[in-house]
Amino acid sequence: MTGPARSPRPHPGGALPAQRLAELDAEPVPARSLPASPATAAEARSAGWQLDDLWLPAVVLRDSALTHNLDRFARWCTEHGVELAPHGKTTMAPRLWSAQLAHGAWGLTAATVAQARVMRTCGVGRVLIANEVVEPAQLRWLADTLADPDFEPLCLVDSSDGLTVLERHLEPAERPLPVLLELGVAGRRTGVRGTAEALELAERIAGSPRLELAGIEGYEGALPQVRDGQAPEVARDWLARLTEFVVRADARGVFAANDEVLVTAGGSAYPDLVAGAFAAMPLLSRPVRFIVRSGCYLAHDDLLYERSSPLRSAADRDPLRPALSCFARVLSCPEPGRSLLGAGKRDVSFDIDLPVPRAMYREGVREPLDGRARIVELNDHHGFCDTEPGLLGVGDVVELGLSHPCTVFDKWQLIPVLDDADRVVDAVRTLF
Amino acid sequence: MTGPARSPRPHPGGALPAQRLAELDAEPVPARSLPASPATAAEARSAGWQLDDLWLPAVVLRDSALTHNLDRFARWCTEHGVELAPHGKTTMAPRLWSAQLAHGAWGLTAATVAQARVMRTCGVGRVLIANEVVEPAQLRWLADTLADPDFEPLCLVDSSDGLTVLERHLEPAERPLPVLLELGVAGRRTGVRGTAEALELAERIAGSPRLELAGIEGYEGALPQVRDGQAPEVARDWLARLTEFVVRADARGVFAANDEVLVTAGGSAYPDLVAGAFAAMPLLSRPVRFIVRSGCYLAHDDLLYERSSPLRSAADRDPLRPALSCFARVLSCPEPGRSLLGAGKRDVSFDIDLPVPRAMYREGVREPLDGRARIVELNDHHGFCDTEPGLLGVGDVVELGLSHPCTVFDKWQLIPVLDDADRVVDAVRTLF
Repeated sequence: MTGPARSPRPHPGGALPAQRLAELDAEPVPARSLPASPATAAEARSAGWQLDDLWLPAVVLRDSALTHNLDRFARWCTEHGVELAPHGKTTMAPRLWSAQLAHGAWGLTAATVAQARVMRTCGVGRVLIANEVVEPAQLRWLADTLADPDFEPLCLVDSSDGLTVLERHLEPAERPLPVLLELGVAGRRTGVRGTAEALELAERIAGSPRLELAGIEGYEGALPQVRDGQAPEVARDWLARLTEFVVRADARGVFAANDEVLVTAGGSAYPDLVAGAFAAMPLLSRPVRFIVRSGCYLAHDDLLYERSSPLRSAADRDPLRPALSCFARVLSCPEPGRSLLGAGKRDVSFDIDLPVPRAMYREGVREPLDGRARIVELNDHHGFCDTEPGLLGVGDVVELGLSHPCTVFDKWQLIPVLDDADRVVDAVRTLF
Repeated sequence: MTGPARSPRPHPGGALPAQRLAELDAEPVPARSLPASPATAAEARSAGWQLDDLWLPAVVLRDSALTHNLDRFARWCTEHGVELAPHGKTTMAPRLWSAQLAHGAWGLTAATVAQARVMRTCGVGRVLIANEVVEPAQLRWLADTLADPDFEPLCLVDSSDGLTVLERHLEPAERPLPVLLELGVAGRRTGVRGTAEALELAERIAGSPRLELAGIEGYEGALPQVRDGQAPEVARDWLARLTEFVVRADARGVFAANDEVLVTAGGSAYPDLVAGAFAAMPLLSRPVRFIVRSGCYLAHDDLLYERSSPLRSAADRDPLRPALSCFARVLSCPEPGRSLLGAGKRDVSFDIDLPVPRAMYREGVREPLDGRARIVELNDHHGFCDTEPGLLGVGDVVELGLSHPCTVFDKWQLIPVLDDADRVVDAVRTLF
């Protein structure tokens, strides 16, 4: 019996192949916020553009915040004895994935096989598809990848019916497909609900010639992600049940022989609760690899994760920094206290929170808004911004803090990256 | 004094240049629902794929519905004495724009200068930017286009401050920039509120050497778009005030000499009320061109516009047909009556309504759902679907009817087009 394997087994190959990244950087794509469109990432990097040159609305990334967050969260994972398979769905940006892998990530997480396909095309070597796969064509693709010694796919199983579909459509391959059994939250998303059912499913997977049980997965983010009241305690209890289940499954001998056991949970809100549950888990019959799958830590935000992350500014001396924001122009002030900004539902996320005005710029001078302006509604291309009368004027620029990075990234194919002097030093290409 | 000019002056050039469209069709783009990705539209057209080959989730367009809606709305416009500048923001799809222009559209509408820039690159010859433009770089671009005899841009002005910004940043050009004065809805979006203020602004525009007043614009879609209760009456009253204003402005002699007057309103919900208001407008001192700007009629939908369009199925014998839907796989049925579909907030619109399950497919057999399934929540990549226990099983496919096409199109770069035998006969490329 050996203790948990806490030494990193990083992503095979580390950063992504430079040539593939360079090819992506050379492809012209629609770039509605750049002075020229279509544009390439390479062009944005060398054109000498500034924030003032951008066509607003423009969602931008801050280089210093990205660099800080990459390092800060990598250190946090090391300090907490967990490894990171960052959720690549957040950004779908090969350059950012590469930076995460170069910072020691064990692999990437994907939500869908289509995302895993993009990742593989970009040279990602290990992808944990944190979802059930029951699509015949996608299972054929997965089986094909098993012949590729440079690619390691994993996916989830959460039901006997799902397992039957997998076995029916997974064609015989060079090696079994590694799967993790998913435990779920009652009343919420995917994942087995009961322990007895889960043990039975684990044994069926263990007995399948096409599959091997690589570990156990859960997503505590299906529970409310707030730091107030009972929510963290509820998540903690659920995570304790997850690790308890891992111990019971290990006792049944269901995990693939000759390999470590993967135990994974953790979005960007509760990785500390996850790490705590992992640390409290008893030793198993074989080495264990503890993996968190946070994706939003890299961009962080001004709202959702600034309320919920263990590295939010209210909870940590070296917090994550919001890297994304949106600059928008005041188009019209048709009534006292009502300004219309030129940014809307197609530019920024609105599924969790509306954007929050952080600062205004008039004739190039920045003034913090400190709660004096509020977005009350978004149309497709307009934001309704309420202030004291006269605060904003036509032609002013407002910088909006954002929530939920996942639904910001997917609205832009090329996102300019600014340095702290507001120069465009790069552009991040996304592949949605 | 001449009567309203009701003979069409269609888009210069009609359909878009075939070569530019072919170039776009030959560019590989991420295509997460296609069997190969990246893929080109040309490839999708010739590969011989079927619905069954698609990687779900897949948003698809129905060829027959598109063809029908193109023709049906063009006929409706002719019958109602209005011309069409369809809102290109809905699809941002050059192939669809081209079809709309080939069906007699007068030009395209854009919400932003960035969209107008894409349209011009694709060969669109006339773009009504139905928005205020106060961005210095964008005004420079607009001024530059005035030197292009093959491009006719128009934009809106709704305030004295906005006009000042325009005059400051519009560099001297070969000809004045044609603008429309925007009338607004109290408490809502952009647009001048009071008649006196609007007349004063019209006179300032008329006196500007850089601008000419081409007409009057309003957007009744800023009012509630429902057919129940007082809503249509409120919209009708507001539209009557708009045409009344046109008459008063004409009496002041503010419209550009030697040209027709443009009068435009009309999204996809109330074009009938708009056409009614236009028809009731007295003659002006010069010819009038009445333009509606509906964009969503082309895709129509199952919810928002199926409730509100004059061509909804409950109101017309030859109604618009919903052309967009999303096919998603049942990934898991973890509790009785709860199924998780593999489609979420990044695949379909959710800003007005959640999707509605129309039909299920099991082993290739289609069964209408007729209200027996309901989407109750969307996560990024999952849809929570509630049914009577046992109705759906893992591996079943659900076809989802959608709402608000604008926030569906912008989630996909390449949308497969199916014929009525579920063959992929084309793919529509979007340029967001």
